[in-house]
Amino acid sequence: MSGLTEFSAEVQAEVARVREVVSALHAELPRWGLVVWTAGNVSQRVAGADLFVIKPSGVTYDELTPESMVVCDLDGNLVDGDRSPSSDTAAHAYVYRHMPEVGGVVHTHSTYATAWAARAEPVPCVLTMMADEFGGDIPIGPFALIGDDSIGQGIVETLQGSRSPAVLMRNHGPFTIGKDAKAAVKAAVMVEEVARTVHISRQLGEPLPIAQEHIDSLYDRYQNVYGR
Amino acid sequence: MSGLTEFSAEVQAEVARVREVVSALHAELPRWGLVVWTAGNVSQRVAGADLFVIKPSGVTYDELTPESMVVCDLDGNLVDGDRSPSSDTAAHAYVYRHMPEVGGVVHTHSTYATAWAARAEPVPCVLTMMADEFGGDIPIGPFALIGDDSIGQGIVETLQGSRSPAVLMRNHGPFTIGKDAKAAVKAAVMVEEVARTVHISRQLGEPLPIAQEHIDSLYDRYQNVYGR
Amino acid sequence: MSGLTEFSAEVQAEVARVREVVSALHAELPRWGLVVWTAGNVSQRVAGADLFVIKPSGVTYDELTPESMVVCDLDGNLVDGDRSPSSDTAAHAYVYRHMPEVGGVVHTHSTYATAWAARAEPVPCVLTMMADEFGGDIPIGPFALIGDDSIGQGIVETLQGSRSPAVLMRNHGPFTIGKDAKAAVKAAVMVEEVARTVHISRQLGEPLPIAQEHIDSLYDRYQNVYGR
Amino acid sequence: MSGLTEFSAEVQAEVARVREVVSALHAELPRWGLVVWTAGNVSQRVAGADLFVIKPSGVTYDELTPESMVVCDLDGNLVDGDRSPSSDTAAHAYVYRHMPEVGGVVHTHSTYATAWAARAEPVPCVLTMMADEFGGDIPIGPFALIGDDSIGQGIVETLQGSRSPAVLMRNHGPFTIGKDAKAAVKAAVMVEEVARTVHISRQLGEPLPIAQEHIDSLYDRYQNVYGR
Repeated sequence: MSGLTEFSAEVQAEVARVREVVSALHAELPRWGLVVWTAGNVSQRVAGADLFVIKPSGVTYDELTPESMVVCDLDGNLVDGDRSPSSDTAAHAYVYRHMPEVGGVVHTHSTYATAWAARAEPVPCVLTMMADEFGGDIPIGPFALIGDDSIGQGIVETLQGSRSPAVLMRNHGPFTIGKDAKAAVKAAVMVEEVARTVHISRQLGEPLPIAQEHIDSLYDRYQNVYGR
Repeated sequence: MSGLTEFSAEVQAEVARVREVVSALHAELPRWGLVVWTAGNVSQRVAGADLFVIKPSGVTYDELTPESMVVCDLDGNLVDGDRSPSSDTAAHAYVYRHMPEVGGVVHTHSTYATAWAARAEPVPCVLTMMADEFGGDIPIGPFALIGDDSIGQGIVETLQGSRSPAVLMRNHGPFTIGKDAKAAVKAAVMVEEVARTVHISRQLGEPLPIAQEHIDSLYDRYQNVYGR
Repeated sequence: MSGLTEFSAEVQAEVARVREVVSALHAELPRWGLVVWTAGNVSQRVAGADLFVIKPSGVTYDELTPESMVVCDLDGNLVDGDRSPSSDTAAHAYVYRHMPEVGGVVHTHSTYATAWAARAEPVPCVLTMMADEFGGDIPIGPFALIGDDSIGQGIVETLQGSRSPAVLMRNHGPFTIGKDAKAAVKAAVMVEEVARTVHISRQLGEPLPIAQEHIDSLYDRYQNVYGR
Repeated sequence: MSGLTEFSAEVQAEVARVREVVSALHAELPRWGLVVWTAGNVSQRVAGADLFVIKPSGVTYDELTPESMVVCDLDGNLVDGDRSPSSDTAAHAYVYRHMPEVGGVVHTHSTYATAWAARAEPVPCVLTMMADEFGGDIPIGPFALIGDDSIGQGIVETLQGSRSPAVLMRNHGPFTIGKDAKAAVKAAVMVEEVARTVHISRQLGEPLPIAQEHIDSLYDRYQNVYGR
């Protein structure tokens, strides 16, 4: 399907650019061990239009190209592309409709993050790099079935009450957000890393908490002073 | 041994094609960390003949080529090839004889799946991706010695009573099936991933169960609506 | 900023050489699984001047080049380079100011070392290779916030009372030192390896201690007789 | 040092061939995750002479070449080569002196095997592939200091009473033997794999034992019928 003809040349150029970005960022998922087979996806909003670019369904990471990416509107309908969009497209679309500040979304089933999600247990903020990046615990979202807006609603409701760019959907896995797809991929990499480190620390005892005032101070510095 | 001369040109062409497929799919086993040294094998049925193509015995993954693959009949006898077939050939053959819908079989000793197998404990269905792919728990097969049809019988009896395309043979490791070798390889990758994730989740508490109706709904959607 | 013009030609040549060394050594961090994304840094002192070369801030390991490295004075001020120095520069600078025998410093958040750090628990010396390399337990440094000399002070105070070239800063991660950056990188690799091995050993029981006299003997041999 | 001139042309040719073999096999150690930095070594006996080829000391795996390998006599003295032999040479030499059937020796500090060694706990035979390859539990050797024949004696005394080609030296790590260096490398790969799998299995309960008669049957078949 090719439905971009009604959009301006600027939007079409931006779509082409975002296809490149999103295609390249998918390589980060297997590189950092976040996915097996085809089980993860990255999307990015198209500046200047109510569109986003997302991975096609059922295609392995080796086969992805900018051309194979698909373009959807904010209701998750296919606008441009030769393949079906990822089966997680409705969740990405819901986030873009309800969180205008979000420019990128990533979903994986990365192992340690998903292990916390299966117990519905937030990852406690016991590392300075968690305070920097997540500003506190990594929260759990509700159990939700695929097929309607339940997953998207669960993501948005959880993240709107949190500093964290990552939510662990119960029995399912992490979704992360960012100002663009690269920031959401970074959050996906970091959520797995901190989920893994805190898991390992807790295997042999209880990690020491970081005082709330120190979490606040680290988060504020990293997000503002340090300029991220 | 070259015993394909009695088969039609179509079958010989199909054997050549399946040799390519099976040889290439073996590279997925070390890629996803499912095997060390030579300890895993992939086979695929040859359409139009009572034959299948399988890995030769004792050859490392780097050395495999389409030509080095061996062709066996459904009793596991060597029909074509310069080397001995994998020592697991009898188990593959038994599956093809008794499960006509199966077109591919994979065997590994992947670490986490084998760890559950050593305790004879099924992997409980606590992840949405397990519901999607396996439709419930991953079952345990009996302890069986190599050398006759015991392993094949254990695989078939266990899988015929289950939605799961994977069985964990007690004290041994996983066998997976699929409509072709690629589907069986995907099941081998996924069984290790979910065995690992559920293991890690259970290390720090009890993962929350998914209600049977939700498992059924997810499985039905993934297998039918989603088109796998 | 280019502030090297006031330095001698010898120092400028040494800076160029150290830029090469430090840039290349950063590749060892992802290679040995010590870092994700941009979360680790290597520095080395410049012989003949009160300068050191360190990673720029926020640059991924793939993008690092000798030219992108930055040069700082021993107060952590930028002297030469187009980018901001790593946000950990103050800690490196403090070490160079207070430990004149140190020629290289490495900081990572490597997983197992950080897991011990989150519990503020030293890694006990139960492996002969720990006795060789660390001469005893790997010590814990205090909790310290970024932004002043607290982290540097914690590193120096802890390491000055220890044979170990590695300190695990509480809730944060490891810092390692060496006669040059390569030695500090080796210590960073080894601290993660022994933190991981001892962690795994303790998961199923208590590792047997090594007698202090044997630790002393192994350490002495490795550092002196063996010629490291 | 070049001390091969007193040996026959056949022996010199064999030394050249074994240098190639041993150099290439070192690449298997990092490939299968058995070593970090320089912490592992492979050796092979030279047919027709009381010599063996071993890794030089302190050289990283990337830098190894056939020419950089060193040749020692069976007392561990350097016979040919530009560098010092590995600091573990005395242990390899002791094995070659006392076990004439052994043609290859490997030493690593691979993580899971070393974790069992730190607890001085044999790995129980609960996997069919352990029965195949090791014929029973993987035994523990004594604590021994480097510097004399203690390590070699501990290896030989432990392995002479066992079917296993691997011994876990207490608080130290695994040594493996084989008819040549390739077989010893395979044993080093397999000992880590089974140490890891049994460790993981035991984390969540007790693996089921395999009856001794089944272990015997599997071992006999694998070593004899299967032709290894």
